[in-house]
Amino acid sequence: MSSPGAPVRVALLGCGTVGSQVARILVEQAADLRARVGRPLDLVGIATRTVRERPGVDPALLTTDAAALVARPDVDLVVELMGGIHPTLELLTDALAAGKSVVTANKALLAQHGGELFEAAERAGVDIYYEAAVAGAIPIIRPLRESLVGDAVTAVTGIVNGTTNYILDQMHTTGAEYADALADAQALGYAEADPTADVEGHDAAAKAAILASLAFHTRVHLDDVDCEGIAEVGAADIEAAEQIGCVVKLLARCTLSADGTIAVGVHPTLVPATHPLAGVRGAFNAVFVESINAGQLMFMGPGAGGSPTASAVLGDVVTAARNRVRGVAGPGESAYSTPGITDPGRVRSRHHLALVVRDEPGVLARVAAAMAHSGVSIQEVRQVPLPGDGAHARLSITTHVASTADLGAVVAELEASDDVSGRIRVLRVEGE
Amino acid sequence: MSSPGAPVRVALLGCGTVGSQVARILVEQAADLRARVGRPLDLVGIATRTVRERPGVDPALLTTDAAALVARPDVDLVVELMGGIHPTLELLTDALAAGKSVVTANKALLAQHGGELFEAAERAGVDIYYEAAVAGAIPIIRPLRESLVGDAVTAVTGIVNGTTNYILDQMHTTGAEYADALADAQALGYAEADPTADVEGHDAAAKAAILASLAFHTRVHLDDVDCEGIAEVGAADIEAAEQIGCVVKLLARCTLSADGTIAVGVHPTLVPATHPLAGVRGAFNAVFVESINAGQLMFMGPGAGGSPTASAVLGDVVTAARNRVRGVAGPGESAYSTPGITDPGRVRSRHHLALVVRDEPGVLARVAAAMAHSGVSIQEVRQVPLPGDGAHARLSITTHVASTADLGAVVAELEASDDVSGRIRVLRVEGE
Repeated sequence: MSSPGAPVRVALLGCGTVGSQVARILVEQAADLRARVGRPLDLVGIATRTVRERPGVDPALLTTDAAALVARPDVDLVVELMGGIHPTLELLTDALAAGKSVVTANKALLAQHGGELFEAAERAGVDIYYEAAVAGAIPIIRPLRESLVGDAVTAVTGIVNGTTNYILDQMHTTGAEYADALADAQALGYAEADPTADVEGHDAAAKAAILASLAFHTRVHLDDVDCEGIAEVGAADIEAAEQIGCVVKLLARCTLSADGTIAVGVHPTLVPATHPLAGVRGAFNAVFVESINAGQLMFMGPGAGGSPTASAVLGDVVTAARNRVRGVAGPGESAYSTPGITDPGRVRSRHHLALVVRDEPGVLARVAAAMAHSGVSIQEVRQVPLPGDGAHARLSITTHVASTADLGAVVAELEASDDVSGRIRVLRVEGE
Repeated sequence: MSSPGAPVRVALLGCGTVGSQVARILVEQAADLRARVGRPLDLVGIATRTVRERPGVDPALLTTDAAALVARPDVDLVVELMGGIHPTLELLTDALAAGKSVVTANKALLAQHGGELFEAAERAGVDIYYEAAVAGAIPIIRPLRESLVGDAVTAVTGIVNGTTNYILDQMHTTGAEYADALADAQALGYAEADPTADVEGHDAAAKAAILASLAFHTRVHLDDVDCEGIAEVGAADIEAAEQIGCVVKLLARCTLSADGTIAVGVHPTLVPATHPLAGVRGAFNAVFVESINAGQLMFMGPGAGGSPTASAVLGDVVTAARNRVRGVAGPGESAYSTPGITDPGRVRSRHHLALVVRDEPGVLARVAAAMAHSGVSIQEVRQVPLPGDGAHARLSITTHVASTADLGAVVAELEASDDVSGRIRVLRVEGE
């Protein structure tokens, strides 16, 4: 294979789990990448926090001065895998302004500053690609941006955080409580020492903002995402889910509401075992897309890991490099739509209620009447005596689709009544 | 939304199941499509075999003269949904030569003349897109062409024909024989009056050629595909599959062999129930991709139907139109690699053998010895007495991975022996 032109020169910001794999693949698959781009892809520098030996990485490439690397006139393409908001935002803004294309996996940055970055790329006539920012190796950004661009997407539902999926899966498999499953995930390297971003849903929320922006051709900010993590999911929730044929998943859900607004949320959700997302096990990710014309599509694969994420990064690098070789940029983000965010109280979903009631005649009738009075219709109900207690029963109620405001009102009313003991545990249920 | 420039003018060739949906969406979603392209998409003509009233289609657009429509100077983009090889090939070649971009769903044409068409597009500096040619609404062409372009794909395995998947699924669900399941599929519109292209595997073979070309950056012709349909799959095969925890699927399988050649085949195959492809029911399609870095990815969705296929067509139309607005073409097909086709006898797979043997001491030992002698290793074997017959037994043998040549040799040897009654039924088994 010949090299008919000057190389496309790549600067790498960050050389951790993903960055080191990108560096490796740029070397190991150089011949194939060159054939696909039409020019060599040359890695000209790697900015890291500390300059130390890294296996398979030429130490001469390393620098701690990311700003100087980005500013080098011989850099065509900046691959950002350092994470964080500052100084990353400034580095990428400078890169784009200087006419360099950008590939990033930084979901938090995009969910908060995507608009500015996309506009900077548009102004400079260069590309910003970010396939690796959502669901690791799974191609989902490009399908939403391009394949489904002639369709009308109505909902995107994803398992987009492998750590929480692993923990919830373990809780189902072993019956473990949350804290034990988390400790297990940390010991195996599936969860970080500080698991906050994963278990509180922040990571999934950033991805939800990105998915919703693409699906609905708008700009959704991280702050627009209604976010609830899994730290309060207990073994009792898992058991209650299984009793009605469901599994608990942390779902990122982006939906077009009947009033034309969009709802974007992350919530632990009961998913019926028959739903394709229910079968997504361990640290895998999957994204389920519903659209007017295509119907239902699902994309599944590894959601994290150095080498899978590097695959997505390299796909973007080749695409951006091909564009540079041909002197063009790909189409920019389509953000012409301003649908507004659905009022959180008007978001509609099925719900599951787990509560303890006095085991007396008339209690179930009063609970059912309170729900009917609030316009919340019951789809399924189960009552079993509370073990070792003659006076109380456990109620498991699945509602039909209702607004969270109506649901909240009836939960407050029931919790205030003498029939109900303690708090009512409420979780969303996927489907209708 | 304003219209800042001249419209992109679209000519449609064919107005059947898919074409009529494309025409409908171009009108119904005109505002959104215009916003996404940056210009209006104007449908300026529709070539059909006969000019007659069609619901929702402006009769003034209809013409029977496809060549004249393609040659019109005011046409920017030709959408080909008429099918067939001639005169379709000539029409699209003319369109590309005249600088018009092409969107097509014609898998048979691409599997036989893709190379010429891609080169014609490259010469003219215009686009040819064909997402709808494989697996209907499922984005798989663009992910292979772009998302995975920085990775090294090792295998693509697909359920890419909904008709045969529906028939096989029915055979599993109802225990029906093939002919009855086919008649049922025809009555419900899932199979055509002449089902040859589907049930003989020709449709899946064309799609396999396209998938293999993209996955391995080469040009695979329909003639390179080793093709076996489902017409000989009987209720006994279905039962034998279920007994070893498998379902029968018609798989299009494209793999990189150890010697660097590629094997592309379509075969009814036993798929273990635990494999993600086993759960693909009814007329759905799915494509399972394995690559060095990304690992295992699966794409699932509706594989046919007017409106899902139209979604894929419109995605390509918007992409091609955006490129025209910006005065560029997307990157062409990457076909730098010439790996050669694996000799059919050297293709490796697990196999399942169903045979009837004399129920006498020493027979199983001789069968096992014959297989060992040919280098075919047994993974699992079951022997049950033939019902209502004291003299014979039924053997169900699953082999480890072996070459089809070695397998064929041992089957011939066994069939020639006195121990075996009649023919041995051989089917491939997915996995290792």
